[in-house]
This record gives sequence, C-alpha cells and structure tokens, in this order.
Amino acid sequence: MTLVIGIAGGTGSGKTTIARKIESSVPIEQVNRIEHDSYYRDRADLTYEERCKLNFDHPSALETALFVEHVKALKGGETVEVPIYDFTKHRRKEETRRVSAKPILILEGILALAEPDLREQMDIKLYVDTDADIRAFRRIRRDLEQRGRDFESIREQYYDTVRPMHLQFVEPSKRWADLILPEGGDNRVALDVLMAKLKSVIGTHSSIPPAR
Amino acid sequence: MTLVIGIAGGTGSGKTTIARKIESSVPIEQVNRIEHDSYYRDRADLTYEERCKLNFDHPSALETALFVEHVKALKGGETVEVPIYDFTKHRRKEETRRVSAKPILILEGILALAEPDLREQMDIKLYVDTDADIRAFRRIRRDLEQRGRDFESIREQYYDTVRPMHLQFVEPSKRWADLILPEGGDNRVALDVLMAKLKSVIGTHSSIPPAR
Repeated sequence: MTLVIGIAGGTGSGKTTIARKIESSVPIEQVNRIEHDSYYRDRADLTYEERCKLNFDHPSALETALFVEHVKALKGGETVEVPIYDFTKHRRKEETRRVSAKPILILEGILALAEPDLREQMDIKLYVDTDADIRAFRRIRRDLEQRGRDFESIREQYYDTVRPMHLQFVEPSKRWADLILPEGGDNRVALDVLMAKLKSVIGTHSSIPPAR
Repeated sequence: MTLVIGIAGGTGSGKTTIARKIESSVPIEQVNRIEHDSYYRDRADLTYEERCKLNFDHPSALETALFVEHVKALKGGETVEVPIYDFTKHRRKEETRRVSAKPILILEGILALAEPDLREQMDIKLYVDTDADIRAFRRIRRDLEQRGRDFESIREQYYDTVRPMHLQFVEPSKRWADLILPEGGDNRVALDVLMAKLKSVIGTHSSIPPAR
C-alpha cells in the first residue's frame, strides 16, 4: 500500500519547504517526492524564443496524464522513469530519474490539486496558504537571486501569467484540500501532526522499522 | 502532560461536529471537551430583557480569564468546576460540571483562537473553515428547528451582531491556526490525520492502552 500526499499552494507559498520537511521526517527508503514541474511538456516543435513565451502556469503546459500514469504505476509496485526538465533550455532532458515504489509518495506542485485525475490518486490533500504579498516577495527574491532575472521581467511575467493563473486555477483548488496549512514552512505543529500520520503508516505497512 | 487542542470557526462551520468526532475517537477516560460558551458571563445585574439584547458574539461576553484559569489547572492535574450556562434564561446555573485532568483537552468556540491568553494554552490550533452561505443556512435551520426562533429575529441578530463580530474577531483569528479544516464535519481525511496524532499521545503519556 502507498500513502499518496499531494501538496499544492501558490508560487512562494513555501510548499516545497513543507514537502521536503515531510520527506526528511521519514527514512529515505520509505518515501518518494515527485514534482509536477518535472512533467512540463517537451515542446521541441517550438524555437527557444517561442518556448520562453509559453504560459508555464497554465495546466496545459504540464503532461499531467503521464504524471498520473506514473503515480498509478508506483502504487502498483512498479518502477517509473520520471522526466527531468531543463529550465534553462525549456526542454525535457534525455536522461530520466528512476523511481521505485515506496510506502509514501509526495506529489508537489502549484497545480497539484487543480487536476481531477491527479487529485483522485491522493490520500491526503494539502494546500499551503500564504498571504499574496509574502508570496510575491519570495518569488521576486528567488528569481533575482537564484535565476539571474531582472525585476522588470519578473514583474511582467507575474502580471501576464503568474497572477491570472493563480486566481483562475491555483487559489480555487484550495477547496479540494483536506487540510490547509497557513504560512507554510515554519508551521511545526502542522508538520508534527502530519508526521504522526506518516509514522503510523510506516509502522503498519513496512517491514523497515521507523527511524528513532 | 496534557495535549490541548483548540477548535475555532464561525457559527455553523461544523466545529462542534469536528470537536465531538475528535472526542469520540479516543476512550472517554482520556479526553475532556470544554466549550467556551460555558463561560458566558452571569449578568445578574441586568433584567432578562436587557440580557437578551447583549452582544453574545463579542469577546467581552465571555469570562475567558476563568476559562484560561481552568485550562491551566487541568494541565496541572487539578479538578475544576466548569460553569453551566442556561441559554433560555441567559444566566449561569447554580450547579457546575466537575472536570478532572485527562491527557487530551479539547477547547471549542467561535472565539477560541481570538483570545491570546487562551491561544497560548493550546498545542494544536484548528480552524474549521466553511463558506459563509453554508454557515448562514445551517445557523438559520438550527435556530428555526432547535431554538424555536422566527426567521425575522434570526435575520436581525445575524446582521446586528453575528456577522459584524465574525468579520471583526472570528475570521481574523484564522491566522493563528496551525491547521485549517475546510468544510468541517465531513472531512474524514483531516480527522484521520488528527487521530493519528492523538493516538501517539495516548500511547506515550497514558497508562491506559489505546482503544482498538
């Protein structure tokens, strides 16, 4: 049996931090974490310039059907080849990441709860809810410091696609959450409650004893 | 050690249903549930007509200091006398409810997260978040069917105090929650996650084995 945890939330909400904390709370041989972003479509039919102008915040930018197929395969005990997306070239890489079935599977992405077929695969649906101004500051900082972007291009993308897609797809998907985590990342109590659940799953379904 | 769980949410949010489900998920000798409403002030200085006109949705209507004192006493292993409020007379009854310390303490009320001193006593802070229209329908139905009120008086109270106090005190207190439960009462996954935590507490701190 696999416990599938879905984690969604807007850009800069802290969902990756939460996902990593959950992942690292259990032994590594018990848990997989897969990002929805890995399934960005490989638009080899477009030039680099055209790919740069794609709306990466719209559900159609992602090959969710393949993601769902992989999740089902992992639940069935199979091994899958998760694509690796190259954000600098906006292309899927030749190589893949081999992922074998483990008792806990964390699925993460801004649109993770927006897709019915993906949602259906989840046992626990989480939404990390963080104020929009805090999310904006975090995204600007990340894009400035880690992605070498200038403020004007960050601002343009935010107004053009990030914000409209957030309001249209991400924010409404909160409704599907089983639990909403306010101000993700620092929320020790929420993580503590979730970890109690994970430990009960590992204790029940695995032959490997839980970490001390 | 006592695990204190606070449950807040607007009128009709389903917080009492959630609180009762959590309560009944553990053996009765392990858990206390106390409602903030039990601590409505005994306004013997007013006539019945004057009491009926009180704003029961404002924090000042409740003797929270006494509630906090009782919570601290229970955490210290003591026994307390919880007041019983008579909603028909709007008075505190002569008799009280004797409550002895148990490993889990559930505190419940629309303003449970709005009072800093009370909040400080909680280990897990929950907010049950339900759409305002659903909450309105539930409150109207409850007041019509269970409290013999007519629609016009329900409507008047809602506009006069219930809604303004919700917007001023209840809704902003969501910010203090560790976990937000959307659409309370039917949320089996959220309850399942919380119960895993409760079971781990009972298993650790109590001499009585958990229920099977």
